[in-house]
Amino acid sequence: MRKVAVVGVGHTDFTAGSSKTQLELMSEASMDAIISSNLKPEDIQAIFCGNVLGDFSEGQGMIQSYLADNIGCFNVPASRFEGACASATMAIRDAFLWVASGFYDIVLVGGVEKATTMGTPLATRTFAMFHDSRYEYPAGFTFPAFFALLTHLYADKYNLPLEKLKEQMAQVTVQSHQYGLNNPHAQFRKEVTVEKVLNSFMVSTPLQLLDCCPFSDGAAAVVLASEEAAKKLTDKPVYIAGVGQASSGKLSSQYKALPRLKAREVSVKQAYDMAGVKPEDIDVCELHDCFSIASIIAAESLGFSEFGKAGELWEKEQTKIGGKIPINISGGLKSKGHPIGATGASQVYEITRQLRGELVDQSRQVEGAKVGLVDTLGGDGVIVNIVLRAE
Amino acid sequence: MRKVAVVGVGHTDFTAGSSKTQLELMSEASMDAIISSNLKPEDIQAIFCGNVLGDFSEGQGMIQSYLADNIGCFNVPASRFEGACASATMAIRDAFLWVASGFYDIVLVGGVEKATTMGTPLATRTFAMFHDSRYEYPAGFTFPAFFALLTHLYADKYNLPLEKLKEQMAQVTVQSHQYGLNNPHAQFRKEVTVEKVLNSFMVSTPLQLLDCCPFSDGAAAVVLASEEAAKKLTDKPVYIAGVGQASSGKLSSQYKALPRLKAREVSVKQAYDMAGVKPEDIDVCELHDCFSIASIIAAESLGFSEFGKAGELWEKEQTKIGGKIPINISGGLKSKGHPIGATGASQVYEITRQLRGELVDQSRQVEGAKVGLVDTLGGDGVIVNIVLRAE
Repeated sequence: MRKVAVVGVGHTDFTAGSSKTQLELMSEASMDAIISSNLKPEDIQAIFCGNVLGDFSEGQGMIQSYLADNIGCFNVPASRFEGACASATMAIRDAFLWVASGFYDIVLVGGVEKATTMGTPLATRTFAMFHDSRYEYPAGFTFPAFFALLTHLYADKYNLPLEKLKEQMAQVTVQSHQYGLNNPHAQFRKEVTVEKVLNSFMVSTPLQLLDCCPFSDGAAAVVLASEEAAKKLTDKPVYIAGVGQASSGKLSSQYKALPRLKAREVSVKQAYDMAGVKPEDIDVCELHDCFSIASIIAAESLGFSEFGKAGELWEKEQTKIGGKIPINISGGLKSKGHPIGATGASQVYEITRQLRGELVDQSRQVEGAKVGLVDTLGGDGVIVNIVLRAE
Repeated sequence: MRKVAVVGVGHTDFTAGSSKTQLELMSEASMDAIISSNLKPEDIQAIFCGNVLGDFSEGQGMIQSYLADNIGCFNVPASRFEGACASATMAIRDAFLWVASGFYDIVLVGGVEKATTMGTPLATRTFAMFHDSRYEYPAGFTFPAFFALLTHLYADKYNLPLEKLKEQMAQVTVQSHQYGLNNPHAQFRKEVTVEKVLNSFMVSTPLQLLDCCPFSDGAAAVVLASEEAAKKLTDKPVYIAGVGQASSGKLSSQYKALPRLKAREVSVKQAYDMAGVKPEDIDVCELHDCFSIASIIAAESLGFSEFGKAGELWEKEQTKIGGKIPINISGGLKSKGHPIGATGASQVYEITRQLRGELVDQSRQVEGAKVGLVDTLGGDGVIVNIVLRAE
C-alpha cells in the first residue's frame, strides 16, 4: 500500500436555508479543494461523494455524476456513498484505498447535503429512515429518542445521577459553542451557558434543544494524492495513517452493549492499528456530537476516558485546547452545523487544517498537533474513523 | 494487484409487487451467494450494496447496515453505492479493488430494489430524479423521453428510416422475451412477436410499451474472493479480469456525441485494456437494455458492430446463442426485469453462470464461453463495465 495524503481542502459555510443547490454547494467546496491543491479539474482521476437526502431534499439523485460534469471532470468514474451521517467519511475511506492501492494518483472526495429544506420536524421524520424504519421507527425511535434512551441507560449503568450527567452534557454544548464562535463556516456563532442549555425546551426527555445539533446545508471536499504526487503539490501533506469502519445494525440488536456502540470500538481499533497509534497519541479529535451525550459516549469508545467517566473530561476542561485531548475545536456538529452527507468531509477538513497549523488566526489552533482522529457515526451504529498524521 | 474471483452467486426472483421487504430480498440473495460459496456469514469481511430508491419505496435508507446485522455479519464495514441503474455494478467494481489490493480476502457485494411499490407512472417520475432534475426533468426528460430522443437522433444520424429502426428494435425485444422464457427468475416469461411490439401502446414517440423494460423488485449478490481463497472454495472460479467506470453528466452536456454515450466508450476501454481483451474476444455479454434502442446503441460502443449497424446484429440473429456475440441470454432487463439497484449484480450473476457452464438445463448456455462482459448504464450516462473470465 502506498501512502496517501490530503493535499487540498474545501468547505462552504454551513447554514440553514441555503439558496444554493446541492450541486452548487458541492461544486464550490470541490473547486476550493482542487485549486488549493494547485490542481485543475482535469487532474482529478475519480470522484467519491457522500450524500444522503438529495432525492428527498431537492429531487436530485446521483449528485456525483452532475458534479463531475459541472466542475469539468469529464468522464471520470464518480460514485455516491450513503451511510447516513457517516456518508462522506465512508467515501473518504474508500477513496483512500483507490489511491493507496496504486489505482489512482489524485482523486476528489467529499460530501454535500441540503438538510434544512424540509423544515426540522419533517427532517427528523425523514432522517428516521436511516434507523430501522420497519420495526423501530414506528415504535418511536427517531434519533432524538435513540439518544435520549442512551442518556438514561448511561446514567443508570454508571450510577451517575441524571442531573449530574445533564450538567456534563451541557458543558459539552457550552464548549462547542465557544469554539464555534471563531469558526467562520459555523452555523451557530454564539456563546451559550450551562444555564441556557438546561433551560432550553425539552425535545425528548432528558434531551433539551441545546443538547441537539441542528440539520444544516453545506458541503466539504478534500483532494487525496499518492505520496509522490503529494510532495509535488504541497509542502504540508497530511497523511491518512489509518482507517476503520464497522456497522452495528439496528438498535435492538445492540441491546446488550448499549450505551456503548460496539461498532465504534471495532472501527477505531482498525484505524489505530493501521496507523500504529494509541489513544494517547491523538493530539486533536473531531468526533460525532449529534447530541451532547453522543460526545461523552464516543470519547470513551475512542479510548480517551474510562467508561462512565468521559463527562469529567469536559467538566475539567480537558477537551479544550491545552487539555488532555482537544475535541471538536471546530465547534462540532452542535455549533458548526451538521449537513449530514458532508459532515465527515468537514471533520477531515478541520483535522487537516489543525495538523497544518492553519488555525492560529481563528484562535483555534492546537499547537504542535501532529496526529488527529476523525470519528463519524451514521444512523444507529455505522462508524467510520480516520487517523491523520502530519509528517 | 491480486486476482479476484466470483466464488458464489445468489439471485431472487424478479417480480412486480413483491411482498418481501428490501432487507428480506437482499438477505435471501446474499445468503444464497454465501452458502453457494461454501462459506458462512462470519467469513464475510466487508459488504458493498447497491440501492437507489430504498428510502422512497419503503422508507428504509442505509439498507447495507441492516443487511449486515440481518444475515449475521456483525460489525463488518458495509457501504451503500448509488449510481442509479448502475449502482450494483459500481459496488462490484469497488468491492473488486478491496480484494485486489489485498485489504480483504472475502467480501459480499450485490444490490436490491423494490421499484414497483410506487406504481409505474410515479416510478417514472421518481426515477427522473436520477436525471438532471433541476433543468432537464422539468423540460420533459423522463427516461422514456431521453431514449425516444436517442431513437430519433440515431435514425437521423445514420440515415436509417425510422420504420426500419423500429423493426430492428422490435427484434431486440422479441429475442429478449424468447430467452427470458427459460430463465426461472425472469419477471415476464412469455414470447412476443415483432407485430405485437409494433402494436403495443405508444409511451414516448417512437417508443412503444414493448420497447421499454419494466421496473421490478428483486436482489442479486455475489461473493468475491482473492485467488488464493477462491481456489479453496470452488473448482470453478470466475475471475474479474477488467473493470471500467465513467460518468457523462447531464444530457445537454453530451449533445455533440449523442446518440453515442461517450462514457461507455471510456469505461469499456478501461475494462478491455485491464483484461487484455478486445471486443471479438467476448463470448457472451449482458448489456443494459432499459429500452430496445439502448441495446443497439450499447452494442456499438462496446465494439460489437460499426456505428449505425448494430440493429443488423439482432436482425441477422448474431446476438443469439451460436451467433457472433450472444447478448442478453438472460432475457435482459426487458424480460428478466429491472430492479434498479440490483440489475448490475444480476448481470454478473448471469455471466458467472454462463462462464461456469451452468445454464445447459435452462437451454440458455453459450457453449464454451470463457470471457464475458457486463455493461450497466445508470441515468444519463454513468457506465460501469466488468470483464469476467473463466480459467
